[in-house]
Amino acid sequence: MRKKKKSERQSELMEMLKVDPFYTDGELSEYFKVSIQTVRLDRLALGIPEYRERVKQIAESNVEKVTTLIGGELVGELVNLEIGSIGISILETTGDMIYSKSGIVKGHYLFGQAESLAMAVIDAPAVLLGVANIKTITPIKAGEKLVAKAEVARKRGRKHYVHVKINNQAQEQVFRGKFIFDELADKEA
Amino acid sequence: MRKKKKSERQSELMEMLKVDPFYTDGELSEYFKVSIQTVRLDRLALGIPEYRERVKQIAESNVEKVTTLIGGELVGELVNLEIGSIGISILETTGDMIYSKSGIVKGHYLFGQAESLAMAVIDAPAVLLGVANIKTITPIKAGEKLVAKAEVARKRGRKHYVHVKINNQAQEQVFRGKFIFDELADKEA
Repeated sequence: MRKKKKSERQSELMEMLKVDPFYTDGELSEYFKVSIQTVRLDRLALGIPEYRERVKQIAESNVEKVTTLIGGELVGELVNLEIGSIGISILETTGDMIYSKSGIVKGHYLFGQAESLAMAVIDAPAVLLGVANIKTITPIKAGEKLVAKAEVARKRGRKHYVHVKINNQAQEQVFRGKFIFDELADKEA
Repeated sequence: MRKKKKSERQSELMEMLKVDPFYTDGELSEYFKVSIQTVRLDRLALGIPEYRERVKQIAESNVEKVTTLIGGELVGELVNLEIGSIGISILETTGDMIYSKSGIVKGHYLFGQAESLAMAVIDAPAVLLGVANIKTITPIKAGEKLVAKAEVARKRGRKHYVHVKINNQAQEQVFRGKFIFDELADKEA
């Protein structure tokens, strides 16, 4: 690929982040074959905030749509949400999430990301987790960026079936789970 | 039941707490049909510490036996442990563990109690959670005492199969789960 002109690169960068705001500066620098510093200057020139700020802004606007949770109850940042259909969240793993003996992130953090995202996509006032079948495929270390995607598979009566997949930064699937939630009657909620 | 004499009651109380140290003062007061204050005075006279102190003492002596975790990584207090066989932990639920919309304890706290207890009973230097199939039977509110029991069901090669059941204070089963852990090779651990 020939190296693009600055104006060409900037308009393509703008387009890319409009379609997928979750490219990091590092990923953009590799794609355009320019330095990270150049990507930063491009963003500044275009008035595009840095990665973390973009994730935060998008998460905040999405959390408002959720009916089953209140702000802060989601494990991870909610970066996309279509209520009753799909949701995507990002969790950056940290050193305080691991089992020291193995150096591996505790299963209940993955479970928490998946469970709370699955709840967030459900279009109901209050639900209770009934069944979960989960599988962890690859051990997760601290400092990884996990992208979870939850899809409502079906709804039967008061039961909501949600499938969740979690990928790592390298787009490999590291976790998958099937969840069944029971919608609570108003008197129970 | 006729009301017991003080000396009779005290020797029976001592015997009961030797067999099961997890009776609360409230439960003992109901059993003996005396006031909680009387139970407290009996304990003082017999030199038996209060419930929380007993749980803490027992948990500390058990945590030392665990090979897969370090102190503080268990969700709940480890009140009984036979490495490679069974383990029991107690978790008291609090207001910061619930989903506000439903008032129900988050599934990942139950999952965390079960997962970490299952890991604790495994006789191996380091393990990774592979599969978990769980079911929550009754919604849990804040302020409940959950008693989890984990049993190693079998071991095949490097795979450890552990079953976990959680009961509430009323001895009703509120959660059950089957977990499969993979033992990590020394180089991975």
